[in-house]
Amino acid sequence: YKGVYDREILSKIATNDGHGENLEYFDGWKAYDRDPYHSTKNSNGVIQMGLAENQLCFDLVTEWLLKNPQASICTNEGVNKFMDIAIFQDYHGLPEFRSAVAKFMGKARDEKVIFNPDRIVMSGGATGASETLLFCLANPGDAFLIPSPYCPAFNRDLRWRTGVNLIPFTCSSSNNFKITKEALQSAYEDALKKNIKVKGIIVTNPSNPLGTALDKDTLKMLLTFVNVKNIHLVCDEIYATTVFNSPRFISVAEVIKDMPHVNQDLVHILYSLSKDMGMPGFRVGIIYSYNDRVVSTARRMSSFGLVSSQTQFMIAALLSDDDFVRRFLVESRDRLFRRHQHFTSELAKIGIGCLQGNAALFVWMDLRHLLDEATVEGELKLWRVIINEVKINVSPGSSFLCSEPGWFRVCFANMDNATLDVALNRIRSFVTRGRVDNSTMTTTAATTTTTTTIKKKRGQMELRLSFNNRRFEDGLISPHSSLLSPHSPMPQSPLVKART
Amino acid sequence: YKGVYDREILSKIATNDGHGENLEYFDGWKAYDRDPYHSTKNSNGVIQMGLAENQLCFDLVTEWLLKNPQASICTNEGVNKFMDIAIFQDYHGLPEFRSAVAKFMGKARDEKVIFNPDRIVMSGGATGASETLLFCLANPGDAFLIPSPYCPAFNRDLRWRTGVNLIPFTCSSSNNFKITKEALQSAYEDALKKNIKVKGIIVTNPSNPLGTALDKDTLKMLLTFVNVKNIHLVCDEIYATTVFNSPRFISVAEVIKDMPHVNQDLVHILYSLSKDMGMPGFRVGIIYSYNDRVVSTARRMSSFGLVSSQTQFMIAALLSDDDFVRRFLVESRDRLFRRHQHFTSELAKIGIGCLQGNAALFVWMDLRHLLDEATVEGELKLWRVIINEVKINVSPGSSFLCSEPGWFRVCFANMDNATLDVALNRIRSFVTRGRVDNSTMTTTAATTTTTTTIKKKRGQMELRLSFNNRRFEDGLISPHSSLLSPHSPMPQSPLVKART
Repeated sequence: YKGVYDREILSKIATNDGHGENLEYFDGWKAYDRDPYHSTKNSNGVIQMGLAENQLCFDLVTEWLLKNPQASICTNEGVNKFMDIAIFQDYHGLPEFRSAVAKFMGKARDEKVIFNPDRIVMSGGATGASETLLFCLANPGDAFLIPSPYCPAFNRDLRWRTGVNLIPFTCSSSNNFKITKEALQSAYEDALKKNIKVKGIIVTNPSNPLGTALDKDTLKMLLTFVNVKNIHLVCDEIYATTVFNSPRFISVAEVIKDMPHVNQDLVHILYSLSKDMGMPGFRVGIIYSYNDRVVSTARRMSSFGLVSSQTQFMIAALLSDDDFVRRFLVESRDRLFRRHQHFTSELAKIGIGCLQGNAALFVWMDLRHLLDEATVEGELKLWRVIINEVKINVSPGSSFLCSEPGWFRVCFANMDNATLDVALNRIRSFVTRGRVDNSTMTTTAATTTTTTTIKKKRGQMELRLSFNNRRFEDGLISPHSSLLSPHSPMPQSPLVKART
Repeated sequence: YKGVYDREILSKIATNDGHGENLEYFDGWKAYDRDPYHSTKNSNGVIQMGLAENQLCFDLVTEWLLKNPQASICTNEGVNKFMDIAIFQDYHGLPEFRSAVAKFMGKARDEKVIFNPDRIVMSGGATGASETLLFCLANPGDAFLIPSPYCPAFNRDLRWRTGVNLIPFTCSSSNNFKITKEALQSAYEDALKKNIKVKGIIVTNPSNPLGTALDKDTLKMLLTFVNVKNIHLVCDEIYATTVFNSPRFISVAEVIKDMPHVNQDLVHILYSLSKDMGMPGFRVGIIYSYNDRVVSTARRMSSFGLVSSQTQFMIAALLSDDDFVRRFLVESRDRLFRRHQHFTSELAKIGIGCLQGNAALFVWMDLRHLLDEATVEGELKLWRVIINEVKINVSPGSSFLCSEPGWFRVCFANMDNATLDVALNRIRSFVTRGRVDNSTMTTTAATTTTTTTIKKKRGQMELRLSFNNRRFEDGLISPHSSLLSPHSPMPQSPLVKART
């Protein structure tokens, strides 16, 4: 009855599931929320490794703030600016904010590109930025192609209120989840056959959840593709400065410089300080478009989610300090590198491989060998064991619409070293307990996978014997299966988070 | 060609005029932007009286901030909270922020109502809050009824991306622009005849642009109306604490307490700190709904425009301080009262009347007697003289879809006393220069109007002789005229401002 009543008086958007919070993927978050780990107060609690936070460099920021009290409008040194900032509501943003962000974006891309402050449009985090951009580029019913696995928050951010569809095309472990022109072309043609208007492609670079960055050839292929089809290329580069290992990060902004024949009106970058600087609370989202009309329209729309002028003011001061930015970028990459190195090498010791990544705040962990059955159900079964018994919240690949069961995204930068080691101990103990006979470890160029034989001694899960990976690499599980149709409600940013 | 090209690759929303910035009403803002007044540097520049800012109480806020450095995460006293706040992205908001805002909303309504912190949903300013609420309540093509004159920003905020229509119903000077059940009923029935689904009524209380607050009977009438029709009542109360004179402010939240038969699921309040505290830069918008489903859905949508956690933290501390809030509310009302009193009494001395108001940051000034002809064109002609010769930017009534030409909204709280006096001198000089024979001054209960005979000695404007006010009070100029159809692009928040 309540449902009927709601549908009668509320909107379709308010009464559909486009927010994505009703999916079972939130069970892991609920488990964490019910019983969060704390080193002294709740040492048996669930450790949160489902949250792509970056907590590694706050000492640098707070040290800077204490040395620069004029960066705050609430200090003795800055309060004389309070009124001017409090009443500031120009949707262009503070000029010094736009300049500082543009400069930071350039430095985050090794100064291979100069970003024009006049093209910087602010928005409420990457969440607001991506929705705003889609409102500019596509009508309800139009579609964007997106390589899977992809960040499930896109299903809400890009679709819920815009009415735009996402059509995933498959990346598979057989080539380390690289985007192929064949998969892209095929998805494009399928859409045309169904009379769906494809308005563009959206990619995350570096990728969430893969932790890898696109190479130049792939970016060139994408640019050529959109140019030929006269559709858009949206590059979500919110993990740009997290590239902690070679090859260095290559932005679409860099590649497009060498492709003068490509229509730049079709190219747009999403950015934010939520991942690169670890400040999602401040809601600094950026749209950088080469299309003048998109810049002016997105700016007009930004009134729905401007960045607080208090925050603009502080960020402007922080990112205008060249010395700070230089030090921050070096330190951040170094700390991420070491954290990643420690985590993956410890996992390797117990036979757990990860896709070889060089970026982001997580690894794409390969547990295919631990699956009871090579299905989404099998993956979720293992996932529940990890949550309830290993007491770690990780994100199953199916929540990212991955076509191959058995992959998990595990975040490693949202905790201190000690907590990470507790998590590693738990994983180690879980694998050791369950393992009787550790057979050959197979290492390929990019992934380390383990074939493990495990006795069925644990009632809650039955691990498969002699599991054959090839079955997944052939892509038997399609992202177009009825279970995970791109048009059905998709997993979102976990519960109450804007983007994870 | 560019237009065709844009329409081909961009969305309909991006290529229509729903943002409203192409309207001539922005000429006043452009004039100000080209030549802004400054007491010493540009004393002949244009004075900005088109901006509903509240600058009167910043001394209280900055004094408090200096005494409470722990309210900032950038100070020595608060920086230990920096990381926790920077990574905070729960869309429920900081619990202390919600509590403080709920308490402030209660105090701003003389503690006649208790607001439940769990119903406080934040959003990017009133702009984001109002759009979010409409996304929850109505489908594209549905309509909301709105009494005119009304805040032109609604045309963008409520319609542009939601696809919802606004249907104005006329309020006229004959009863001091009060909402009548007849006008409401008639607009509702007209819409039904046109097969338009009416989903609700939206009112601003206190009114922008009138500067008056709704009385209890009107609120009861509105509640009864929506209850009978099973449609929504949205009350925009962003000027709640600006009620500086009796009668005291009555919120819909207070009235609904005495009407238990009314379905509370239909009642929603919009709030913000942009006007009451004068902080539009901080983008603190609030949706307070009595409908549980709207609360949960709006909260999910708030991810597109959350309030910066840095700002939440500061506002939470500020508004949790009962002593500060008490002092602020008393002082703010007192200063607004005195400012309003000074401005209107000086205007009265030169024969300019205003609708008798007791709230907001502006007056609704009656210049009908100065019109050359009683049309929108005549109003705009006078307006251009005011901008270009008197060098004051005010907002013409037609930009608020007022049905009677000759009314202007004039803001008085966005400047210091000295600037206000310069503006008054200019108006005085303009009226004196133009006036030869000042005939009878007519005073009605609520408005003071002047019939003025003026020699046609100024080429740029020809003031009418012996002008008959009745012509407008009969409502000859319909808001449904082709010039200002509610379905054509409407004036928006001036140029780059989120809401004015």
